[in-house]
Amino acid sequence: MLDKASFMKNNNDTELNLSCPIPKSDYDKILLAHGGGGTLSHQLLNKLIFPQFDNEILSQHSDSAVFSIDGKKYAFTTDSYVVQPVFFPGGDIGSLAVNGTINDLCVSGAEPLYLSASFIIEEGFLLEDFWRIILSMKKSCEKAGVKIITGDTKVVDKGKGDKIFINTSGIGLIEEGINISPKNCRLGDFIIINGRIAEHGIAILSAREGLEFSTTIKSDTAPLNSLVKKMFNVSKNIHCMRDPTRGGVSSTLNEIALESQIGILIEEEKIPVSEEAKGACEILGFDPLYIANEGKMIAFVSPSDAERVVNEMKKHDYGKESVIIGRVTEENPGTVLIRTKIGTKRVLDMLSGEQLPRIC
Amino acid sequence: MLDKASFMKNNNDTELNLSCPIPKSDYDKILLAHGGGGTLSHQLLNKLIFPQFDNEILSQHSDSAVFSIDGKKYAFTTDSYVVQPVFFPGGDIGSLAVNGTINDLCVSGAEPLYLSASFIIEEGFLLEDFWRIILSMKKSCEKAGVKIITGDTKVVDKGKGDKIFINTSGIGLIEEGINISPKNCRLGDFIIINGRIAEHGIAILSAREGLEFSTTIKSDTAPLNSLVKKMFNVSKNIHCMRDPTRGGVSSTLNEIALESQIGILIEEEKIPVSEEAKGACEILGFDPLYIANEGKMIAFVSPSDAERVVNEMKKHDYGKESVIIGRVTEENPGTVLIRTKIGTKRVLDMLSGEQLPRIC
Repeated sequence: MLDKASFMKNNNDTELNLSCPIPKSDYDKILLAHGGGGTLSHQLLNKLIFPQFDNEILSQHSDSAVFSIDGKKYAFTTDSYVVQPVFFPGGDIGSLAVNGTINDLCVSGAEPLYLSASFIIEEGFLLEDFWRIILSMKKSCEKAGVKIITGDTKVVDKGKGDKIFINTSGIGLIEEGINISPKNCRLGDFIIINGRIAEHGIAILSAREGLEFSTTIKSDTAPLNSLVKKMFNVSKNIHCMRDPTRGGVSSTLNEIALESQIGILIEEEKIPVSEEAKGACEILGFDPLYIANEGKMIAFVSPSDAERVVNEMKKHDYGKESVIIGRVTEENPGTVLIRTKIGTKRVLDMLSGEQLPRIC
Repeated sequence: MLDKASFMKNNNDTELNLSCPIPKSDYDKILLAHGGGGTLSHQLLNKLIFPQFDNEILSQHSDSAVFSIDGKKYAFTTDSYVVQPVFFPGGDIGSLAVNGTINDLCVSGAEPLYLSASFIIEEGFLLEDFWRIILSMKKSCEKAGVKIITGDTKVVDKGKGDKIFINTSGIGLIEEGINISPKNCRLGDFIIINGRIAEHGIAILSAREGLEFSTTIKSDTAPLNSLVKKMFNVSKNIHCMRDPTRGGVSSTLNEIALESQIGILIEEEKIPVSEEAKGACEILGFDPLYIANEGKMIAFVSPSDAERVVNEMKKHDYGKESVIIGRVTEENPGTVLIRTKIGTKRVLDMLSGEQLPRIC
C-alpha cells in the first residue's frame, strides 16, 4: 500500500497540498449523514465540491445540469443508487435507478431521451437477482419511453460492496420556452404536489426491518415524464419543479427557498399522507415531511394556472391525488413555514443529520 | 428482509419471471472475472444485458454510444471506477475517473464537453483523502479542458463499500465527417499505438502489493483528447480507435476483430514496453499485452495516412513513442495473430478469467 508521503512525491504536485476547507475539528471522516441529502450533504457540496468544479452550469445547483449547443437546450444528470435492500415492496434498485434519473431530468423541464447504466456488483451476488434487476430496468425504460444506450459493469471483491450499486446518468432535451429554476419562483406562486408522501422511505425501512406494514405500504417509485409533459401542455407558467427524494418534501422546499430567497408557507392539512404511512411514521418516530419519495414532484405555478395544472395532473395515473399544498410568500425569505392543523405556524427546517441511510 | 416470493407477490409481475439465460449449471453467482473485461464480461453483456436493452444505439457496442439530434452527432459514455488502492503511482481514482471517461469519448471521435461525477463513499473514509481526490479531479479536468457540470454523493455503511467508488459519465460532440467504428476497419489498415503498454496495471499491482518496482513504474493515466484532435487534423482516414484498458491491448484488438470480422496481425517486436514493465511482468507471470492501460489508444488508419498520423502524434506529449504495431489482414477474420520476435505466428486470445481485478 502506498503511503501519503510517497504518493505526494510520486505525483510531485504542490497543487494537491491545498488544505481541506472543512477543519478536522469539525470532523475528519465521511459520515453516513454526508449522503443523506440534508445539512451535512450540503456542507460537503458547498465547501468541498462546488468551489473546485465551479462553472456556470454546475453553479445552477439543479437536479440536472442544463447546457446549450447550437441554441438547443439539454439537461444532463447522474445518480448512484445504493438502496438497501435491493428488492422492496413496489420496486427494486433497478426500477429506482431508471425512474430516479428520469425524474431528475423531467423536473428540470427536459424530455428524457437516453440513459446510461453502470453496475458495481459485489462478487457472489446471485446471477438470478442480477437478471431480475435487468428485467425490471427494461420494464421501467419501456414504461417511460427512454432507452439505455451505454453502460459499464464492475465487480468488487466480496465484502467490499453490498450486493449491487447502480449509477444511471441521463440526457434530456428542453423544449424552447421552457425554463425551470428555483430562481423563477415568484411571489404568490402556488405549490403543487402530485400525491401522497413518505411511501418510498417507509417501504424501504419496513422491508429492511421486517416490519408488519411492509405488506401495505409500497414504494411510490414511478417515472414522472409523461405527467410533466401533460402539465406543460396546459401551462407555460410552471416556474420551478423538483422531486422530493432524500430529505423529503421538507428538505426540497428548503433548498428552493434558500436558492431563490423566497418565503414558503405550507398548509399541513393539505399535505397528502395515507393513514398507513402516518401510522408507520408515528410508530417509528419520523415526520413524513422528511421521508424520501421516488414518484413525487413539487411544482411552483402561477396562481392563474395552478388550478388548470392540478386538474390536468389528476387525469394522469401518477397525479390522481394532486393538490395545492402552499404558496410563495413575501415574509421570511429563505425560510419554509408550515401552518399546522391547529392554525399555528412553525419553521420547517432542512433535514439535519441522518434519518434513513441508503434510501435510494 | 423481503423474500423473493413476497417480492414477486408485491410486484404482481409475470414479466419478471422470465428465466435467466445463463444456466445455473454454468455458474449461479457473479464472479470477479465478470468485471475483468474478458470472456466472462462479454458473456454477461451479450447474454443478459444487451438483448434486454436492445436498441440501435446500444447495439453499436462502442466505447461511447453515438446518437444524433437535429443532424448533430453526440457521444455519451459512462464508467464506474473501483480501483484499489485509490492512490497509486502516477495518479489516483479521481484522475483515472476523469481521464478514463474523456478517453472513451475521444476514441469514439468525439470532442469531450461535459462530465458528471457521482461518488459512493464508505462511511469513515478520511475527509482529507476525499479532498485530495476532488483536487486531483479538478486538475485533470483543467488539463483536458472539460467541465464537471453535475454530480451526486452517496455514503454507504462502513464495510459495505471500499473507501470510494466514482462514476463519471460524459457527453461529447462529434464533428461532421468523423465516423469511428470497428465496422469501418479496412483491409490493409495500419494499427497505431501511442506509446508503452502495461504501465497502469503494473503500477496498480505494485502499489497494492508493496512491490519494489512501485517507485519506477507509474500509471500512464492521461487525457487523450488533444492528441486525438491532432490526429484528425492531419487525417480523415482514421477508421477505428479504442483505448486498451481492462483486458489490455490483446482484448481490445480481439473485440475489434470480432465486431468487424477482420483479421489482425501484430508484430511483437514493434510493441512498445519499457524494460521495467517487461521485468515486472516476468516476475509476476503476466503478459504485458493483457495488462490495462489508461493513457493509450489504438488507431486503425489508412496506409496512405498512417505515417503522417504517427509523425503528428509524436509531436504530442502523450504520443512521443507512437508506432505502427500491425495491420488488418485478409486471413483469419475475427482473429488476432501475433508474429513473435523469432518469426512464428500465434493466436492472441481475449483475456479469459480474471487477471487483475479492480484495475480501474
